[in-house]
Amino acid sequence: MNTFGQTLTLTTFGESHGPAIGGIIDGLPAGIAVDRQLVAVFMARRRPGASALVSGRAETDRVEILSGISDDGRSLGTPIGFIIPNTDSRPRDYDNLKDVFRPNHADFTYQMKYGLRDHRGGGRASARETAVRVAAAAIVYPLLLKEGITVGARLETVGGRPASEAEEVIKAAREAGDSVGGTVSCTITGLPPGIGEPIFDKLQARLAYAMLGIPAVKGFEYGDGFAASAMHGSEHADIFTREDGRTVTRTNHSGGIQGGISNGMPVTMRVAFKPTPSIARPLETVDKEGNHTTVMTEGRHDPCVALRGVPVVQAMAILTVADLLLQQRKQ
Amino acid sequence: MNTFGQTLTLTTFGESHGPAIGGIIDGLPAGIAVDRQLVAVFMARRRPGASALVSGRAETDRVEILSGISDDGRSLGTPIGFIIPNTDSRPRDYDNLKDVFRPNHADFTYQMKYGLRDHRGGGRASARETAVRVAAAAIVYPLLLKEGITVGARLETVGGRPASEAEEVIKAAREAGDSVGGTVSCTITGLPPGIGEPIFDKLQARLAYAMLGIPAVKGFEYGDGFAASAMHGSEHADIFTREDGRTVTRTNHSGGIQGGISNGMPVTMRVAFKPTPSIARPLETVDKEGNHTTVMTEGRHDPCVALRGVPVVQAMAILTVADLLLQQRKQ
Amino acid sequence: MNTFGQTLTLTTFGESHGPAIGGIIDGLPAGIAVDRQLVAVFMARRRPGASALVSGRAETDRVEILSGISDDGRSLGTPIGFIIPNTDSRPRDYDNLKDVFRPNHADFTYQMKYGLRDHRGGGRASARETAVRVAAAAIVYPLLLKEGITVGARLETVGGRPASEAEEVIKAAREAGDSVGGTVSCTITGLPPGIGEPIFDKLQARLAYAMLGIPAVKGFEYGDGFAASAMHGSEHADIFTREDGRTVTRTNHSGGIQGGISNGMPVTMRVAFKPTPSIARPLETVDKEGNHTTVMTEGRHDPCVALRGVPVVQAMAILTVADLLLQQRKQ
Amino acid sequence: MNTFGQTLTLTTFGESHGPAIGGIIDGLPAGIAVDRQLVAVFMARRRPGASALVSGRAETDRVEILSGISDDGRSLGTPIGFIIPNTDSRPRDYDNLKDVFRPNHADFTYQMKYGLRDHRGGGRASARETAVRVAAAAIVYPLLLKEGITVGARLETVGGRPASEAEEVIKAAREAGDSVGGTVSCTITGLPPGIGEPIFDKLQARLAYAMLGIPAVKGFEYGDGFAASAMHGSEHADIFTREDGRTVTRTNHSGGIQGGISNGMPVTMRVAFKPTPSIARPLETVDKEGNHTTVMTEGRHDPCVALRGVPVVQAMAILTVADLLLQQRKQ
Repeated sequence: MNTFGQTLTLTTFGESHGPAIGGIIDGLPAGIAVDRQLVAVFMARRRPGASALVSGRAETDRVEILSGISDDGRSLGTPIGFIIPNTDSRPRDYDNLKDVFRPNHADFTYQMKYGLRDHRGGGRASARETAVRVAAAAIVYPLLLKEGITVGARLETVGGRPASEAEEVIKAAREAGDSVGGTVSCTITGLPPGIGEPIFDKLQARLAYAMLGIPAVKGFEYGDGFAASAMHGSEHADIFTREDGRTVTRTNHSGGIQGGISNGMPVTMRVAFKPTPSIARPLETVDKEGNHTTVMTEGRHDPCVALRGVPVVQAMAILTVADLLLQQRKQ
Repeated sequence: MNTFGQTLTLTTFGESHGPAIGGIIDGLPAGIAVDRQLVAVFMARRRPGASALVSGRAETDRVEILSGISDDGRSLGTPIGFIIPNTDSRPRDYDNLKDVFRPNHADFTYQMKYGLRDHRGGGRASARETAVRVAAAAIVYPLLLKEGITVGARLETVGGRPASEAEEVIKAAREAGDSVGGTVSCTITGLPPGIGEPIFDKLQARLAYAMLGIPAVKGFEYGDGFAASAMHGSEHADIFTREDGRTVTRTNHSGGIQGGISNGMPVTMRVAFKPTPSIARPLETVDKEGNHTTVMTEGRHDPCVALRGVPVVQAMAILTVADLLLQQRKQ
Repeated sequence: MNTFGQTLTLTTFGESHGPAIGGIIDGLPAGIAVDRQLVAVFMARRRPGASALVSGRAETDRVEILSGISDDGRSLGTPIGFIIPNTDSRPRDYDNLKDVFRPNHADFTYQMKYGLRDHRGGGRASARETAVRVAAAAIVYPLLLKEGITVGARLETVGGRPASEAEEVIKAAREAGDSVGGTVSCTITGLPPGIGEPIFDKLQARLAYAMLGIPAVKGFEYGDGFAASAMHGSEHADIFTREDGRTVTRTNHSGGIQGGISNGMPVTMRVAFKPTPSIARPLETVDKEGNHTTVMTEGRHDPCVALRGVPVVQAMAILTVADLLLQQRKQ
Repeated sequence: MNTFGQTLTLTTFGESHGPAIGGIIDGLPAGIAVDRQLVAVFMARRRPGASALVSGRAETDRVEILSGISDDGRSLGTPIGFIIPNTDSRPRDYDNLKDVFRPNHADFTYQMKYGLRDHRGGGRASARETAVRVAAAAIVYPLLLKEGITVGARLETVGGRPASEAEEVIKAAREAGDSVGGTVSCTITGLPPGIGEPIFDKLQARLAYAMLGIPAVKGFEYGDGFAASAMHGSEHADIFTREDGRTVTRTNHSGGIQGGISNGMPVTMRVAFKPTPSIARPLETVDKEGNHTTVMTEGRHDPCVALRGVPVVQAMAILTVADLLLQQRKQ
């Protein structure tokens, strides 16, 4: 199903090559000042065509809000419906892919799941669907800002090298008709203690669910993450102390979460993106009838999806935290 | 809330120091042969007190099924209620912890979330709650086995060293009054193509949610995971080919999942466990009033929770896959 | 929250005086032939301004489908987003109502619930919101028709008199500046046995929930309904017999439902609508400050909401049955 | 599925002839003083065998609470698991019914839905399942009482005659080997304005869903109900006035609900029960093979299920209102 969240929900629709994509945000309390400027900034960061490093698709990504906002820009508490018109779809780019399975793409699995592929696949599987998530997060973000909560994401590594070398690494990959993976780190500051639920809906479980729901994400860790598996308890301990009248920890191996619940320290996490499987090289594969053949992806694609993944990671963290914050309010 | 799953749900209850813990499984189709022997085996693997390497708490962990199973052991399609009596609870072990916050435990966060701690914390936060998950998974597992699906988990590393050295590493940690982390790998075989949903409920998103909901888990990755972030697309490609009349991939960088949906190859994942924060050394901390003090955990604890985490990882994978399998059937 | 259904869901948005209302249908299987002609017919039946008997608001109620339908009009299995532009909103009609509570309206309760009223009330509480439900039902209906299931609704009584006298009764009420109530009956034919769930989600429970969620509905009954409360078991018994190789009942006191599950006979129900509280007479009331005053509703209103309630009753029955039909498929 | 509610949920399990029935209450806030005496009183009112007017089955209906309650009887905020042992099951009473369909029972529909009947039907369809609902409502009720909210239900009519004649009417029916229907009225007092949601989850929609989910219920109305359908708007108007500094209505045609939300007046509703189909007379029917035969129900049954329906109506109203009250708190 196409709904994310429990107390604050986002339901999305839209194929990448139809007239519009969009969504409905339900559960945002009344009185939040929606910031159209912020929405534009968020969309610009995710938009394709913005630089030589990303896909050449030229969407303007204008978000039209149809309900739920008063004339003076405040949320009414009612559902916020919005659409993003598709302005630069070129379905013919994909005609040569109709009957073959691109390696590591959703082509084969959609074919097996739905018995048909082009529409359900080329449509909803497209990274374009993430534009709706970013728009929704931008609309919701002032709820968090008002509480002093910020959510930031940044590119950490590209192809195993520090983000400072991103341009060089990505250009080299593009020139080689190849692509590279990367990692994105995300930090939530100002989150009060007490957010998250103790059993299944631990804060980290909800964040992991959100992040692994982003196309191309292969892994999630928070705090010391996988590195903690090689540590001793005595090294990993976050000693409590007092600071400015608050109980804090001296270190933050826990990544701001203990027992599934925020402890007031920054929540830190890392997300791994795979190299996009759309590369400008012929790859062996099979077609629908099971014949061996080769395929080359000729559409407009990103040589490093982690780059445009940064605002999507931020968006999913915003939606997750806002949902859990509102859940906590009822307790 | 205390319910896991959507089409096949598990709702759990129980404090570690009350008369019993238990749960209700809802949505298991009629006609599944529940295997009480298998339930006993699963419980034995998770049970404390089984060896010198794990906690000394001596629970028999007998699962009493109260409904939903016919006299000849088949599921009726109705909810399966079951309880696991608590037989060796020693609440007094924890008396010294009433007013201090153990580093990296849920003590502080529960206090902040609920305003009270002992019951909600010492109770539900206990790893004992995972016994209900393991029992439920053992009851449900024949549904998967019948379809030729197996779910296996094994300890992969302990304190950064291969599992073959586990005994040595864990004993050393215990003797030093310390603990160690570890990783658990899990593989699902026989899963047909088509399981998982394309947008938010990707197979990997649901698995990540399930795994990060296990106490002490710090990270999740599937297929090449974090390593993929350092790779090129040309390296990461899983070339399709034909084998025994089926379309398969030559390699399995994807970990059996493409576009959020299983592709018929083994689903592979890894889970990182932190070193347990309960160690036999005095640690600095603060108490409820904000005074600096020290705390030492004297209860019966595991020096390496990853060890007993193995059957819990397996259990959560079983529950997740069974849920998604039943979801797919309606499409 | 603004989502209806479980397996087939409708999420709605839109204020009566914003740019558009709309919704997202999620869970409709692929391959259903959406009938735009049928959508237009359904909308025309619900539309205001169609005759002298209903509200003069002149909406064209054109439904724009934005996703989820292929070029040849078949559902793709992906979410169907649609909008209905608002073309004849006149918010100023309501200016005189800003500070007073109209008797039997939602004015007072919205004020108490949300602390603000105009937007949330004049907006979402408007009967205009039901246009989205009718549009969604029209889109979904071919799923039922394909299975041989039809859903019909008709006006049964108006102001306590048979529907054949409706025109006369309603005109008399309008001339007297008054309004009248009415009842609508609804019959589902062709529903196979086995639809509905045995405990909480009985077919009649889901239908009752759907019907009482329609503005102005005061009661629901199925089969013999309230009359059954005055009967003996021997009178109420639906004797089973055989007809054309099928097991059927000679009578249908049960209204096609036994034990919460359809038995293959027509499902029959009745719904009571109150007289609309918007009448052209001054009524005593109080204002926000608690002062006694009078209020008269001058907007464009229906003298008998049961009339335009007919397609809404049909719509809610369609959505409910389609949802339960899809739920049954997975068992 | 076997879960009722959204913010406060009850999940139930248990066949009438297994070792126990029971449930899990999730979402009850911490600190509610659970009253075991009240639980006993509620159970006694629903219990069979209490008088000559009801079924002779002699269950003691002792409720064993296994978790979620502190030693001093207060809710912990964690899930409350409870069981009710079955002590007087006599499955053999039903042996003669194995292959025939009792008129108006769930026999035929369960057979059609599940392909099997005895367990799923004779088990979960039993009115015994409602004992779990009554127990849960008794545990939850102090949450409402604490807020000054009371929920009362009483028998209103039996076989079409006033409840004062119930004994006479029921005895006559029993002696004639027959059964009678009845109506139960329910009133909620002290409910603050603002409870209920404006679109699908109207207070009356949730109450209707709850009531039609009770076995043998055929209809639901609130306020003036079906009678309102024969009224004019001018008659039905509830004029607002001031009383003790509060805005109230002079009359209560609305039954305490306007626009789906409570207005602070008593919430009034009526529920219709059919005459039980289990009567001591041979009835014509068909068997599984489609042969005509006769059937007579010889188990222990109630001649008027409305009688024991009274505490069940009260229970469902309590669970519904508690759920919506907690939902409102988060807004």
